Amino acid sequence: PGQQVAPPVDFRGRAGYVIATAPTRAELVETLDRAAALIGFRLRQPQARPASTHPLVDRAARETRSTVEVGGVAIGPDTFTLVAGPCAVESAEQTIEAARMAKAAGAVLLRGGAYKPRSSPYGFRGLRADGLRILAEVRAETGMPVLTEVVDSRDVELVAGWADMLQVGTRNMQNFGLLEAVGDSGKPVLLKRGMSATVEEWLLAAEYIALRGNSDIVLCERGIRTFEPSVRNTLDLSAVLLAQARSHLPVVVDPSHAAGRRELVRPLARAAVAAGADGVMIDVHPDPASALCDGPQALTSSDLSGLAGQLEDWAALAGRLPRQLLDPERGVVR
Amino acid sequence: PGQQVAPPVDFRGRAGYVIATAPTRAELVETLDRAAALIGFRLRQPQARPASTHPLVDRAARETRSTVEVGGVAIGPDTFTLVAGPCAVESAEQTIEAARMAKAAGAVLLRGGAYKPRSSPYGFRGLRADGLRILAEVRAETGMPVLTEVVDSRDVELVAGWADMLQVGTRNMQNFGLLEAVGDSGKPVLLKRGMSATVEEWLLAAEYIALRGNSDIVLCERGIRTFEPSVRNTLDLSAVLLAQARSHLPVVVDPSHAAGRRELVRPLARAAVAAGADGVMIDVHPDPASALCDGPQALTSSDLSGLAGQLEDWAALAGRLPRQLLDPERGVVR
Amino acid sequence: PGQQVAPPVDFRGRAGYVIATAPTRAELVETLDRAAALIGFRLRQPQARPASTHPLVDRAARETRSTVEVGGVAIGPDTFTLVAGPCAVESAEQTIEAARMAKAAGAVLLRGGAYKPRSSPYGFRGLRADGLRILAEVRAETGMPVLTEVVDSRDVELVAGWADMLQVGTRNMQNFGLLEAVGDSGKPVLLKRGMSATVEEWLLAAEYIALRGNSDIVLCERGIRTFEPSVRNTLDLSAVLLAQARSHLPVVVDPSHAAGRRELVRPLARAAVAAGADGVMIDVHPDPASALCDGPQALTSSDLSGLAGQLEDWAALAGRLPRQLLDPERGVVR
Amino acid sequence: PGQQVAPPVDFRGRAGYVIATAPTRAELVETLDRAAALIGFRLRQPQARPASTHPLVDRAARETRSTVEVGGVAIGPDTFTLVAGPCAVESAEQTIEAARMAKAAGAVLLRGGAYKPRSSPYGFRGLRADGLRILAEVRAETGMPVLTEVVDSRDVELVAGWADMLQVGTRNMQNFGLLEAVGDSGKPVLLKRGMSATVEEWLLAAEYIALRGNSDIVLCERGIRTFEPSVRNTLDLSAVLLAQARSHLPVVVDPSHAAGRRELVRPLARAAVAAGADGVMIDVHPDPASALCDGPQALTSSDLSGLAGQLEDWAALAGRLPRQLLDPERGVVR
Repeated sequence: PGQQVAPPVDFRGRAGYVIATAPTRAELVETLDRAAALIGFRLRQPQARPASTHPLVDRAARETRSTVEVGGVAIGPDTFTLVAGPCAVESAEQTIEAARMAKAAGAVLLRGGAYKPRSSPYGFRGLRADGLRILAEVRAETGMPVLTEVVDSRDVELVAGWADMLQVGTRNMQNFGLLEAVGDSGKPVLLKRGMSATVEEWLLAAEYIALRGNSDIVLCERGIRTFEPSVRNTLDLSAVLLAQARSHLPVVVDPSHAAGRRELVRPLARAAVAAGADGVMIDVHPDPASALCDGPQALTSSDLSGLAGQLEDWAALAGRLPRQLLDPERGVVR
Repeated sequence: PGQQVAPPVDFRGRAGYVIATAPTRAELVETLDRAAALIGFRLRQPQARPASTHPLVDRAARETRSTVEVGGVAIGPDTFTLVAGPCAVESAEQTIEAARMAKAAGAVLLRGGAYKPRSSPYGFRGLRADGLRILAEVRAETGMPVLTEVVDSRDVELVAGWADMLQVGTRNMQNFGLLEAVGDSGKPVLLKRGMSATVEEWLLAAEYIALRGNSDIVLCERGIRTFEPSVRNTLDLSAVLLAQARSHLPVVVDPSHAAGRRELVRPLARAAVAAGADGVMIDVHPDPASALCDGPQALTSSDLSGLAGQLEDWAALAGRLPRQLLDPERGVVR
Repeated sequence: PGQQVAPPVDFRGRAGYVIATAPTRAELVETLDRAAALIGFRLRQPQARPASTHPLVDRAARETRSTVEVGGVAIGPDTFTLVAGPCAVESAEQTIEAARMAKAAGAVLLRGGAYKPRSSPYGFRGLRADGLRILAEVRAETGMPVLTEVVDSRDVELVAGWADMLQVGTRNMQNFGLLEAVGDSGKPVLLKRGMSATVEEWLLAAEYIALRGNSDIVLCERGIRTFEPSVRNTLDLSAVLLAQARSHLPVVVDPSHAAGRRELVRPLARAAVAAGADGVMIDVHPDPASALCDGPQALTSSDLSGLAGQLEDWAALAGRLPRQLLDPERGVVR
Repeated sequence: PGQQVAPPVDFRGRAGYVIATAPTRAELVETLDRAAALIGFRLRQPQARPASTHPLVDRAARETRSTVEVGGVAIGPDTFTLVAGPCAVESAEQTIEAARMAKAAGAVLLRGGAYKPRSSPYGFRGLRADGLRILAEVRAETGMPVLTEVVDSRDVELVAGWADMLQVGTRNMQNFGLLEAVGDSGKPVLLKRGMSATVEEWLLAAEYIALRGNSDIVLCERGIRTFEPSVRNTLDLSAVLLAQARSHLPVVVDPSHAAGRRELVRPLARAAVAAGADGVMIDVHPDPASALCDGPQALTSSDLSGLAGQLEDWAALAGRLPRQLLDPERGVVR
């Protein structure tokens, strides 16, 4: 740009005038800069608002916040989605029973883990491929689409063959190969926030998925790690609000994994609705005491029904459409 | 106890019998213990459930959760209390204007800081005694009782002479001399959670106040310090639930200081109601841009009115009584 | 400034020239700014480096880092100071015994708490005025100057009458009335970092003291609150380095309160020396098992002697002068 | 066990006696339990010390702490290992230059990232396979074995074909498929602590690797996420001590990634030696200002030489053997 020939500046203003000339634009800028320095100023180029670090998922990328469709179920700003199911698929019986509980209470999407990430290698790590088959059977019986976690990039193709939506868990939020693999899978993705991830890092993780051409991403806040010993994690509802303000993606809340304690799940779920979350995801189990994974946080059938009834009222107050106004054919809001 | 003479044990059970004898109770226990060791067992005393570390404020200390009355205003499990006012008392004009905004919106208790704890010694630290006088004038005009912070044990007597309720701030939650002084003051106390205090430490701080004979304590969650840089603090609603479960004290929420950003205040306040908080405390300012303290988090008049309208609906859904059912003479629930 | 008459700008540069004129300086600036806008630029005033938020304790306030003298003992960049003593003064016997242990090991400053801030109101809160008298007797016998905590602004005058150095504890780092009171006391102050305070907030707290005319401040890192359950606090040595880089104040380390476990005290103390701390402060107790406060972190006599021997070697390697090079009359470095 | 015929208990003690009889062992236990209840006691079976949750890496699994050998280089309790190299392999020239700097300073193991996990998908993510080839060339020229990160389970076989040691980074500490894949690789593994992982979770992650038959694991502390904004992460030396006490694995420290600031690297490295770490890992770059990744934390050549000289003295003081006492043939300590 320094080689451009520059027309002189000849400016008549409200109260004075400026004449400036130099052979090239670069030299003209330099000359004006030095002239300005005589009266204590320098030249600068006005800064454009900084570009988003995550342009694809940025709020500015869409006119309205997005609705993601999963097997006919809508998750987005107009509705409120209740996801429920067992933390882990332990057997066909336990899974179908939990799914019936979930459906009876009004849940529209079934969660259930076939592949479980466990801190200890000696823990129950899921039925894996067998679990996927069970989930498919339960979907066939209940009609509920299925959300299940994938924990290794090598498993994505297999899991995507069975599931309606893939979950990336908190421990894998920055497993970038996995993010790209689920991005390539063509399936909607539920991306949990890392347990010590900033909102910025969370959105950057979503951008990894979107960059592979997959924008069907739902964010899920599930609590962060703090110093408080009485809860498993500390639910962070301000992160839900920030994520909704900065991206166009739906954001749901998992109060079960946040609190890790059954008695906190219902009030935290209500708080999530009131804050404006686009849905909640709840652990249920027909017999929490015998659960192979996270029993202390699972709701029983009556717990869940009670909660679901409340959520409907709260969601209506929050301006969310009741389910019957959703188009049953397209799964999106009429 | 070893000196007690012990009657022998002579036990005939369902299937067998035991005879044991020794001169003293201690020796009898020792003898039985050693006999049990022959078959791989030891004797132990069944543990009583551990006593509460904070018996006076413990949930078990009262049949129902407490209602605290402040100048005719009730804070407790049956109602929902809206506290509002300026972060700092800056002038008579600004304070009366903020109080009118608060009252018009339905707030029943006026907050306003005459003594401001500030991280920097160069910040605006409040009008101090002059601020107290302004608050008293504003109370006279609006009829709203006044909540104001006290930051030093030496000021308690003075501040208690003017205010209806004393606030102990997050930085002073473990200023034990101050806790005892407000306990001695005879005034109701609002005790904010320390910014990195566990729920247990918070209740122990309340116990300091209660031990001086003052049980009119309201707890206030105002966000904790985490790694997230986008908010001033992270609002922790699970702590509200834990505090309500473990103590009989009312618990309110300050979403303004938690978020530090105006646009998060309304949704977080709604979430607080839905979670079951007993009230919220909101910063308002007639002209946030000119505020001497925490302007970015202050709501304006129309913000606050909008919020208050919503809160009424949400509180009703949460089973809280509308204000008109409160006894206007006694300020407590009919 | 807009009313100033402005001489015209008449600039001949390396490659071009500028002529600009307007009646006043403000109009001249405006005119040049609009002219610059024609080629895509604006005028700005070069920003000075931002002033320190804590000018009195800022590193820039002094040519070299400060040495603080306490009853003839130097704490500062040339030496390495071993502070030791019991967490709490429990009795004359226990205190004198602990002091002898400390002195025998080479400690030059005696710590001991007469006023103990305790999370629970039912804990042992110190012998208070009786404890001060015991400390004075022990000083008379051992010749060691005494550091003791003050927890309430109302106690400062009394405690300052007995102690050689006042400690402000982690819970009181933002008890601003107390900071001002110790600033007024004329005694050197040891200021512990708040358990979730940023380095910036720590230095601002020190500025409160310095603003009262008292610059004899020693900072003390004692661990921060994190999610790790295996230690009481997480020792943060990078904060020591940052505090030394940003302020001229000496910085010492308390590994005993950081770790809360005896077996970590020695290696963390060595690490503190190696990082460049100006001293360490160690809990000792003649009989840790019977200690009324923080027994699990107290070293015994032989532990402390072993540590002190190591610290001397490590401090020498860190370029710290041995004690015999300190001027015995003035307590500062020859 | 209830069906066992039980001999009667007939016990004569120091001061008394017990006779107890019942047909079966279970009934005998029940009878004695009920007899004990008469004097306020119950029977219990003494608890064995709880088994380790990570038996393979537990300290109790070996008589002495382990030494891991990497291409002739020992990492373990008797020596002190300096690992250095560029954060990212950017080009053959930059890598060989950085390696020469590292070797000249005394580093014995070369680190360099061919696969870089980056928070943003738009960041430089490494030369990948090309980077591996560069590392192999640099190894051939310098003779230094090579440590490089693997970020996806699908890449392990490829990376293990080129590298001497595989690094699992902080974001992948709970990427369990990756842990198992590196466990299967037969190569030594450096396992960084997750940025918000407890020590327990870190050791459980190591157990995943060990369960695949690979015990050549070196742990690496690299700072944790806290509220302090002035550093990238907070180095946690107490975690080093806890990991060494609870496991037999060597533990090294990465002060470069912890601090994220060049001026903190040297003092934190010294602190790591003094605390008892088994080695340090340092970022170096021939031209930090132009680095594609983490330039602000990279040391230059003279920085590193200065540090290495100091580390040798500090390591000797910590009782670590100088390198010349290592057996050049076997790479382990004579």
